Amino acid sequence: MRASTKNRFPRWALFAALASASVGAIAPASADEGMWLFNALPKQQLKSKHQFEPTQAWLDHVMLSSVRFNTGGSASFVSSNGLVLTNHHVASDTLFKLSTAEKNYNENGFLATKLEDEIPATDLELNQLISIEDVTDRVNASVKDSMTPADASKARQATMAQIEKESLDKTGLRSDIVTLYGGGRYHLYRYKKYTDVRLVWAPEASSAFFGGDADNFEYPRYCLDVTLFRVYENGKPAKIDHYLKMDPNGAKEGDLVFVSGNPGRTRRILTSDAVEFQRDQAMPRTMNNLRRKEVLLQQYGLAGPEQLRRSRDDLFGIQNSRKAYTGMLAGIQDPSFVASKKKEEQEIFSRLSANPKWAPLAKAWDTIRDVQAKRKETLSQSASLRTQLYGFAERIVLMAAEDRKPSAERLREFRDSARASLEQQIFSDVPVYDDLERIQLADELSRMIDDRGGNDPLVLAALAGKSPKDRAAEIIANTTLKTAEGRKALSKQGFDAISKSNDPLVQLVRAMEPEYRKLREIADSLDEQERQAYAKITEAKFALGGDSVYPDATFTLRLSYGVVSGYESNGPVPAYTTLGGSFEHEKTHLAKDPWVLPASWHAAKDRLKGDVPFNFVCTADIIGGNSGSPVVSRDGAMVGIIFDGNIESLTSDFYYSDRQGRAVAVHIAGVLEAMRSIYNAGFLADQMGK
Amino acid sequence: MRASTKNRFPRWALFAALASASVGAIAPASADEGMWLFNALPKQQLKSKHQFEPTQAWLDHVMLSSVRFNTGGSASFVSSNGLVLTNHHVASDTLFKLSTAEKNYNENGFLATKLEDEIPATDLELNQLISIEDVTDRVNASVKDSMTPADASKARQATMAQIEKESLDKTGLRSDIVTLYGGGRYHLYRYKKYTDVRLVWAPEASSAFFGGDADNFEYPRYCLDVTLFRVYENGKPAKIDHYLKMDPNGAKEGDLVFVSGNPGRTRRILTSDAVEFQRDQAMPRTMNNLRRKEVLLQQYGLAGPEQLRRSRDDLFGIQNSRKAYTGMLAGIQDPSFVASKKKEEQEIFSRLSANPKWAPLAKAWDTIRDVQAKRKETLSQSASLRTQLYGFAERIVLMAAEDRKPSAERLREFRDSARASLEQQIFSDVPVYDDLERIQLADELSRMIDDRGGNDPLVLAALAGKSPKDRAAEIIANTTLKTAEGRKALSKQGFDAISKSNDPLVQLVRAMEPEYRKLREIADSLDEQERQAYAKITEAKFALGGDSVYPDATFTLRLSYGVVSGYESNGPVPAYTTLGGSFEHEKTHLAKDPWVLPASWHAAKDRLKGDVPFNFVCTADIIGGNSGSPVVSRDGAMVGIIFDGNIESLTSDFYYSDRQGRAVAVHIAGVLEAMRSIYNAGFLADQMGK
Repeated sequence: MRASTKNRFPRWALFAALASASVGAIAPASADEGMWLFNALPKQQLKSKHQFEPTQAWLDHVMLSSVRFNTGGSASFVSSNGLVLTNHHVASDTLFKLSTAEKNYNENGFLATKLEDEIPATDLELNQLISIEDVTDRVNASVKDSMTPADASKARQATMAQIEKESLDKTGLRSDIVTLYGGGRYHLYRYKKYTDVRLVWAPEASSAFFGGDADNFEYPRYCLDVTLFRVYENGKPAKIDHYLKMDPNGAKEGDLVFVSGNPGRTRRILTSDAVEFQRDQAMPRTMNNLRRKEVLLQQYGLAGPEQLRRSRDDLFGIQNSRKAYTGMLAGIQDPSFVASKKKEEQEIFSRLSANPKWAPLAKAWDTIRDVQAKRKETLSQSASLRTQLYGFAERIVLMAAEDRKPSAERLREFRDSARASLEQQIFSDVPVYDDLERIQLADELSRMIDDRGGNDPLVLAALAGKSPKDRAAEIIANTTLKTAEGRKALSKQGFDAISKSNDPLVQLVRAMEPEYRKLREIADSLDEQERQAYAKITEAKFALGGDSVYPDATFTLRLSYGVVSGYESNGPVPAYTTLGGSFEHEKTHLAKDPWVLPASWHAAKDRLKGDVPFNFVCTADIIGGNSGSPVVSRDGAMVGIIFDGNIESLTSDFYYSDRQGRAVAVHIAGVLEAMRSIYNAGFLADQMGK
Repeated sequence: MRASTKNRFPRWALFAALASASVGAIAPASADEGMWLFNALPKQQLKSKHQFEPTQAWLDHVMLSSVRFNTGGSASFVSSNGLVLTNHHVASDTLFKLSTAEKNYNENGFLATKLEDEIPATDLELNQLISIEDVTDRVNASVKDSMTPADASKARQATMAQIEKESLDKTGLRSDIVTLYGGGRYHLYRYKKYTDVRLVWAPEASSAFFGGDADNFEYPRYCLDVTLFRVYENGKPAKIDHYLKMDPNGAKEGDLVFVSGNPGRTRRILTSDAVEFQRDQAMPRTMNNLRRKEVLLQQYGLAGPEQLRRSRDDLFGIQNSRKAYTGMLAGIQDPSFVASKKKEEQEIFSRLSANPKWAPLAKAWDTIRDVQAKRKETLSQSASLRTQLYGFAERIVLMAAEDRKPSAERLREFRDSARASLEQQIFSDVPVYDDLERIQLADELSRMIDDRGGNDPLVLAALAGKSPKDRAAEIIANTTLKTAEGRKALSKQGFDAISKSNDPLVQLVRAMEPEYRKLREIADSLDEQERQAYAKITEAKFALGGDSVYPDATFTLRLSYGVVSGYESNGPVPAYTTLGGSFEHEKTHLAKDPWVLPASWHAAKDRLKGDVPFNFVCTADIIGGNSGSPVVSRDGAMVGIIFDGNIESLTSDFYYSDRQGRAVAVHIAGVLEAMRSIYNAGFLADQMGK
């Protein structure tokens, strides 16, 4: 499993935007189910089932040691001098951006033997969660019953922007309001940001992603899916107060473990109508788009090794998403799943109707049903193109227009409090490959014809009389937005100059802008209707006695827990693999790509301790975005790092099951042993936990 | 370019069925455009432009030397003792079916050094066209103006079946009526059939398909894309009267050459409304289905070398189709193409309106427009699943029901005159792989949910309460149709037994049958409306003075012609490559897969004549299905064999252009030299042409 698509900008990630807004789950948690808020843990259940009572100090320590990668993953502080441990596949976006045809850090790995050699990442922002505040009442107070959904949405967003701005001004911390339970609660999250992030050590992709796309979402596994960064402040390694100690002897079979990370999105609260919309409309469409990009990038990569390198990160991301969506869709295509949802809803309706105070809440389910019908109408009507350069241009054009309004009235992503992060995304000096941008833009124009038909006015305007291929070639050849300088220069010119710009990419975005805004307004209005409805559904479920409830994932910090445990799948699957097992796994697959261990492993085979645990599985409830999350012991020490879920866990977007579903982690003992015996990185291993 | 999808049964080929019926083109031919009927050649044009006047003897010889592969390709007789030369990629379906995990003839090649070693193909039928008869008047006479389209369709098909039956009874020859000009003409084609076809020689896939999917549809090329079969009669090599002589010195730059083969489908007659339906509805859907199968098979192939082998033929076919469709769709997504169609139509309308006798013909364009709107309604409503086993079961179930009616009243494919060919397809002993059938059936069930929604009654009946995966596993585990014996046994039991069968696959087909028949009736009715309309459009175009007109391709024998000629594409592209250039091409691509020449080539490098022509291009008008067509000189001798079209030729489904579009062929000199110097097949080369 790869990083959440949630906040990854602006590439394959954007597929996430195709699906409807994230909403919160409320079913009573069973087994070790649940992605819990740090300020609302199931303490009773932890105590009765696992005889564990976390202290506030324990919770604060784990929370403050946890790190979010704004590109869509999780991580943790692992030393007092700023070391941050995450997955190689979370780091890969950066590894690709730092690589060139000559120096391929993603393929060949990297080690900085001294601080001066550590390489600044192009555009990373790491977030450390500092505090959570419930602002539900203030957010809801801005919305009056008499408002239309569109007005309600605007009023709500204005208040949210206002609260965030006040918080930013007061604390200097990144301040984001998170919508929980699909609209049932609003919490203000304050983060410390780190933007000087440097690459310290990465193994080869052939070790981190050993088994490739074939082994992805499978188990047993043998992947050293880790990379070390270091955060800096004022040009020096940051001094970190809360970081995790190492416990290489932890995570034994049967042990209780915790996962502290940022699951990207679950949709367990969805009503049966909303699930059916996902099953029959939204997800098949997303799958078609994913397969389209996958085939396009594969074909491009056939042109040669350099093309392969340029496309590989995006391709892996797409394949990962496609595989994940296949599993999710399979889960909800099973007729028994929707049937059980409907049965549960009938029980809820019957209990609500018995109480005159509750009875009106049942109408919320009807609202959700009506909203799905409206979503269906505009499903194929996007007015945005999913390429890196188009994304940059679109944001610059919209930002110039939005900045003429007060912060609270802007489209949400352009509010003042989020500006620094947005600018880092747009104005960083990331590689742009003309040929890759060209085929992607041509394909997006072609997709727009598929979606809207060749006679659609927006299509005709976008093509300007040319074929998708010729139009894309013309735009990419002539746009000035391929460099960070070009983007900064345009943005600096401001609204009037942008309106008159003869940059063909800017002109394309401007031609699409009115329709984009129209569709955005429709979507915001539908989202608001869903928020109000899910707030009522949440109220209903709380009223009916859910006492251990957690909201759906929102790419914010959560604590999951579970037990280190193998499972049955055509015979027993063991909880652990070992470092030595890697060589066996290679042999079983005849040492053919993608089962080729790097030369460094073969060279170190004799000195490597083969029986050290390497990968393991546990029952903790995770999903994409949890990649890189520390696995923590009862003592609050690090025992592993999440990097995948097995194929049986893929339904967990919609429902959790621990029958065969498992979270997959790298064991910290394996990491430390590999650093010492294979990678000459013992000096870094020695810093970890200290 | 791979073989036409037209008659390939029942695998990836079936995508062809998604598009509307093949219709004929009528635009006045320019340059070397045209896929000409053997009984209606542009003699005037050949004489004036190329100073060539074919005699009837020349035409008969070329026609009788030409061979059609019923699996979807072309070929020719090349010796008096039954040798048939076609493409490796046309043969690959057979090569895969004859291969096992231990003996992989597709990958490693094959050579029979004596007749006893030649291996019978599992299910090949080769056709030699003997005669063509115009039966338009008799076919049209059966249709009265007063009939509904559905009744007209039935009446027409009954008459066609009757004519075919009479011809079969009288001549003993396979007799097929071909619909030309989309309904403007009906011709009766009589074929001699060869069903004892044996594999004689095939090179390695790495030579035949050198450069793989990356080089497919590209030029320059270095592919030995040939395979030799031999036809037998009464257990002995057939004695062939008409076969091609070899001319290794032919096909020099500037030479006039002819291509005699079976182009699968073009759609040049389509009205602008029909093109828009293809552009906006049908082809995007086909593309989504192709990409879906491509990704599915790729994922399956990752499981190991044996899975890779099992899926490779289908995967190559799908990738080939996907690439071809990408090119076609790009051609019609260019706004200038539809604009020029519309302009041309306006001119036609204006000329028709000037003549009261012609004016009513213009209504035919309205009919076509209305039919497209109706096609849109049922586009996603198929009631058939595209897997090999489902295809077998569906035909057996339908055949049992249809056989209770007289031949002329049955669904067309079950008429008596076509029975022998159909039975060979269903009852041949072809390999069936449980795991591959399982994932394909599961995916097809999942696709049906995408298309119809999870609450659709047909979907619910097909799933029988289970997930697609579980349902597919249950069906594949328990069906008896995996062997030829099982299929024959079921078929022999007849209608009543089949109706009561508890074979789960038969039950699935029977659950789908009513809906299948309903949709089939709708489609047949729409096809009939189009046939009548295109007959009028043909009449109009003939009336307006088209004097050199050819019908769209219909997977029947046509003669194209053109000139051996390089072209410009970022610099000049030469007409020829040489055998020696293969080694250079390998080196340029660092000898990495798929640019790895087989060991046999490296071993023979010193004795191989490097300057012998290997591949070449010409301007002849071809399309999928032409694969394997002989390229013939003015003297009627073989100078090459078509195996591909370059990427610029891919628009030729809708329009021909010789600016950069080229047919790509293997030069016969290169074939003979490789047989002698690399493959120890000189004794076969010596038989060729004799």
